[in-house]
Amino acid sequence: MEEIQQAVSMNTLTINNVWMMLATALVFIMHLGFASVEAGFTQAKNTVNILFKNTLTPAIGLIMYALFGFAMMYPGDWTVEGVLAFGFGLDTAGAGDLTYNEGYTYWTDFLFQGMFAATAATIVSGAVAERIKISSYLVFTVFFVGFIYPIIGSWQWGGGFLSTLGGEEGGFVDFAGSTLVHSVGGWGALAGIILLGPRIGKYVDGKVNDFPGSSVPLSVIGVFLLWLGWFGFNGGSVLSAEPGATSLVLVTTSLAAAAGAIGGTIMAYIIFKRLDLGMALNGILAGLVGITAGADLMSPWEAMIIGLIAGGLVVVSAVTLDKLKLDDCVGAVSVHLTCGIFGTLAVGIFGAKAGIDQFLYQLTGVAAAGALAFGSAFLVFFILKKVWGIRVSAEHEASGLDAPEHGIRGYTIIFDE
Amino acid sequence: MEEIQQAVSMNTLTINNVWMMLATALVFIMHLGFASVEAGFTQAKNTVNILFKNTLTPAIGLIMYALFGFAMMYPGDWTVEGVLAFGFGLDTAGAGDLTYNEGYTYWTDFLFQGMFAATAATIVSGAVAERIKISSYLVFTVFFVGFIYPIIGSWQWGGGFLSTLGGEEGGFVDFAGSTLVHSVGGWGALAGIILLGPRIGKYVDGKVNDFPGSSVPLSVIGVFLLWLGWFGFNGGSVLSAEPGATSLVLVTTSLAAAAGAIGGTIMAYIIFKRLDLGMALNGILAGLVGITAGADLMSPWEAMIIGLIAGGLVVVSAVTLDKLKLDDCVGAVSVHLTCGIFGTLAVGIFGAKAGIDQFLYQLTGVAAAGALAFGSAFLVFFILKKVWGIRVSAEHEASGLDAPEHGIRGYTIIFDE
Amino acid sequence: MEEIQQAVSMNTLTINNVWMMLATALVFIMHLGFASVEAGFTQAKNTVNILFKNTLTPAIGLIMYALFGFAMMYPGDWTVEGVLAFGFGLDTAGAGDLTYNEGYTYWTDFLFQGMFAATAATIVSGAVAERIKISSYLVFTVFFVGFIYPIIGSWQWGGGFLSTLGGEEGGFVDFAGSTLVHSVGGWGALAGIILLGPRIGKYVDGKVNDFPGSSVPLSVIGVFLLWLGWFGFNGGSVLSAEPGATSLVLVTTSLAAAAGAIGGTIMAYIIFKRLDLGMALNGILAGLVGITAGADLMSPWEAMIIGLIAGGLVVVSAVTLDKLKLDDCVGAVSVHLTCGIFGTLAVGIFGAKAGIDQFLYQLTGVAAAGALAFGSAFLVFFILKKVWGIRVSAEHEASGLDAPEHGIRGYTIIFDE
Repeated sequence: MEEIQQAVSMNTLTINNVWMMLATALVFIMHLGFASVEAGFTQAKNTVNILFKNTLTPAIGLIMYALFGFAMMYPGDWTVEGVLAFGFGLDTAGAGDLTYNEGYTYWTDFLFQGMFAATAATIVSGAVAERIKISSYLVFTVFFVGFIYPIIGSWQWGGGFLSTLGGEEGGFVDFAGSTLVHSVGGWGALAGIILLGPRIGKYVDGKVNDFPGSSVPLSVIGVFLLWLGWFGFNGGSVLSAEPGATSLVLVTTSLAAAAGAIGGTIMAYIIFKRLDLGMALNGILAGLVGITAGADLMSPWEAMIIGLIAGGLVVVSAVTLDKLKLDDCVGAVSVHLTCGIFGTLAVGIFGAKAGIDQFLYQLTGVAAAGALAFGSAFLVFFILKKVWGIRVSAEHEASGLDAPEHGIRGYTIIFDE
Repeated sequence: MEEIQQAVSMNTLTINNVWMMLATALVFIMHLGFASVEAGFTQAKNTVNILFKNTLTPAIGLIMYALFGFAMMYPGDWTVEGVLAFGFGLDTAGAGDLTYNEGYTYWTDFLFQGMFAATAATIVSGAVAERIKISSYLVFTVFFVGFIYPIIGSWQWGGGFLSTLGGEEGGFVDFAGSTLVHSVGGWGALAGIILLGPRIGKYVDGKVNDFPGSSVPLSVIGVFLLWLGWFGFNGGSVLSAEPGATSLVLVTTSLAAAAGAIGGTIMAYIIFKRLDLGMALNGILAGLVGITAGADLMSPWEAMIIGLIAGGLVVVSAVTLDKLKLDDCVGAVSVHLTCGIFGTLAVGIFGAKAGIDQFLYQLTGVAAAGALAFGSAFLVFFILKKVWGIRVSAEHEASGLDAPEHGIRGYTIIFDE
Repeated sequence: MEEIQQAVSMNTLTINNVWMMLATALVFIMHLGFASVEAGFTQAKNTVNILFKNTLTPAIGLIMYALFGFAMMYPGDWTVEGVLAFGFGLDTAGAGDLTYNEGYTYWTDFLFQGMFAATAATIVSGAVAERIKISSYLVFTVFFVGFIYPIIGSWQWGGGFLSTLGGEEGGFVDFAGSTLVHSVGGWGALAGIILLGPRIGKYVDGKVNDFPGSSVPLSVIGVFLLWLGWFGFNGGSVLSAEPGATSLVLVTTSLAAAAGAIGGTIMAYIIFKRLDLGMALNGILAGLVGITAGADLMSPWEAMIIGLIAGGLVVVSAVTLDKLKLDDCVGAVSVHLTCGIFGTLAVGIFGAKAGIDQFLYQLTGVAAAGALAFGSAFLVFFILKKVWGIRVSAEHEASGLDAPEHGIRGYTIIFDE
């Protein structure tokens, strides 16, 4: 009898863990999604440079998360209660304990969270592309993924002060990270583009010049891979394979993405009078970011409304940033920051937890995460700017970064005939 | 004791549901597969246009399926018994009921089926590419995915008249949709290319001119993603994770694909005297479509034979269509209609259900689905043609659709050096 | 009670089998990874040719494995005890038996192993690209996947002499195939490039000329898909979903890949004084190949060290091969042979089984597999060379293989404006 009980429990853990491992694989493939979107939307002369950044980012991210991030984000002991926990290294001794959690093993927990961590930095790379010094970007990534992201994450997912804002009634809600992942990355991106300034020739005589992206197919590949990856990003954030919650989350996630495509397309048609594929694609991402905070709390119809709004919002945000001469090469700030904030606040407006108290908790979370993410990113970029510079030479910017920094170019497909 | 029983049942549901959710993710990625294949096989001047269609199609498809399709395809009540069921909206009230099915939750059911629905329209987009008005395509998609596909699907998968053709002994068999998905899409594609007419310059003085596809790597990416997606398309059609059935289905599916590549390569070599990668790729898709109706009924050897025949057939079909001056940009009719019909009939010829009765059931299913799919698609395209036109101007066709409709082009990778 | 017991056992099988089927899907997608990496790293004039090879290879591989490989690799009876087992065909009669194994069904077993088999040949295709006759490559693939790979595999995974080297204490260890898959492919590649000779113009007057790869984004797509696929390649090699082992394996695998990227980047920076994206990418693959033999035996820190070393090693190996005028178009020998050997030996140096005895078992395995893989590949290529040639004409090599062999070219994206 007890033997059967144990076998049943083991089955439960195994199923849950299989789901979480596959969710991890799906979040991993988001890194290819980001790489593809960013390389597709930026100019061919910088393709190798952006791909280099996007290749190294998950590598650095995983290693830093193993060294510091995981221990700091899910603290045993707080250094400053609910706010800051220094920590180092994986717990290799206790890792084999299968009673760690019913939903996953220690190793799965680390890897799933580690894949998340690296996305926060990857979001930055697209915005600052085409003119940032790669050495400065890499140093920033080490700090941002290794320390800033896990500290902010600890405030909510590590049981810190945001998670207990409302006392017994719960507090801030951020299911899979509209704020903790996406807006954090978006704030980093915003700090970067403010300090870098726009690309040469982007804003001339009050006119916004478009630099055509190198490859639209590559951008499409990227966005669909991100949508796919979000099956794991949101679906895995249930932290078990519980059938009701996981499948609802996949439905709200996919419908928000679909509605985001429609919202982005319509708003872009209104503003630009064309069928703008870039905005349909960013609309998908906007819908995904928007639903992420409350994917488990919304009905399908609410998910569609959130996606539709987010899809429209991303277009308005992109136009607004250009008016402010904030040059974001791929729309990362509009997708991840604007829609990350919107999605977080949407938990107080739509769905099972809607209400004025919840809205205020959400606002608090947005503000707290924003203050540290933007402040620290600004500081790191600012110090880097003063110490050894964050921007490439005008000459390299004009020629593209691929030849001088990497010695090759992204495409060599001209035929000699 | 009862507690254990419940835990065991919950484990069973959870496993099955995990499999079905991942199958859903795999079917989702088929949309990227279609986008890649179609963009790769068509001309660079229309790349953005086809990608726009393929991006919006799953978005529209999912939303229409949530609004109408799901309720119409799996009816509680028939409006006309076994033939037609009007319906609207998801059952958000009953969705949380975990006793809905042992194999999946209500949400998973919807999302898996919704991903299927959108593929039927996506099949059309490739065939009609490079000259269809995008507005007309989008209107067609709304109707085809929202109403025509679910009505035909209800005839079999919703328990309608095709499923009961043979009374107690069962009836029409279409495991994962050689007919209900692929031939339906193929019939829509055929109606479209008949009414559109061939691209300018395709058939001149009795000669067939090839318009080179923009990117062979993109086509390869697409076909491999479709093969991958078919793990979920067929594997998920078991509707649970039952180990024997699911794993047999993956084996027959993969071996049919492999044999299809061989069949397509050999037949193309016989006809064209060259190693035709396009036909190897379409051979893979042909094998996959061909095995889809009976993937659970065939032995591995029968699967290989079906794949081999389908792979050869797709080449013959493509040549035949060109003789009839039916211009299908990507071979969609040959892959999905020709091999969809063949695969459906193959259930009466090979495998566990082979027999003359079954063959006649299969023929009936093919004919019934064909009549409604072709008839209604023809009607919709015909009305659109009369009302506001389905074909772009000759000028836009010559220049490509990307600049006039979307304001950007697909690739900008020429270096200034 | 017994009923519950059975339901629990069935759940266990189902979970394990789901994991193994998804691992199979992930290994399948490695074929797209290889196709993308190889097409990306080679010249645009040969893109169709390499994609044709990479499309046919898994097709041929799966069919040959169904016909011969599976029966020979996991023998019921040995023809020569522990060394050679002739065999033919799948056991379609016994396939339905769900007591076959607790971890998977017969069909899953076949398909998982079949996906592995085809990778060994695919490794060869990249190295010999741009000058091998495609007919010779295809014949080689039939022999290599159909016979050589399964014979070597049978020595260890089929219970042959390598698996019993140490008697009761176990023997050779190769968790997921650093030797049995990767070095076997690498030896085949080495034999091929020796007999083919370098591409015209590669080594001139003591100088090594680089031929720029057609598409860096395609290479990045390939490497990330391979990393993703390795979740299944290593994760599935646990042969069940046992949560502790599978999740540890995913952690060591991912950390080795991450460290490999760092190792490759640093070593390339030391040698070439540039941020070499190609070497960061090959560093990832090197780390993955390096951890594959002992992914279940290493701590995360050991995995990082192995990855870091492998990442550095792949750069040194590539430089060395060029010094020896061994022209490997994509670095396949350095990734799969050099790091395959290193990873195999690393099991005797790091981790749970480290020790001098183990090191000697590892060395024995490396040598035995190398002797047959290299010897037989050399023989097959040598015979092919004598009988009908293995190298294309100098004219075709100069013009590229796409036009003469396949009648199309890889990219047609120049605009007429």
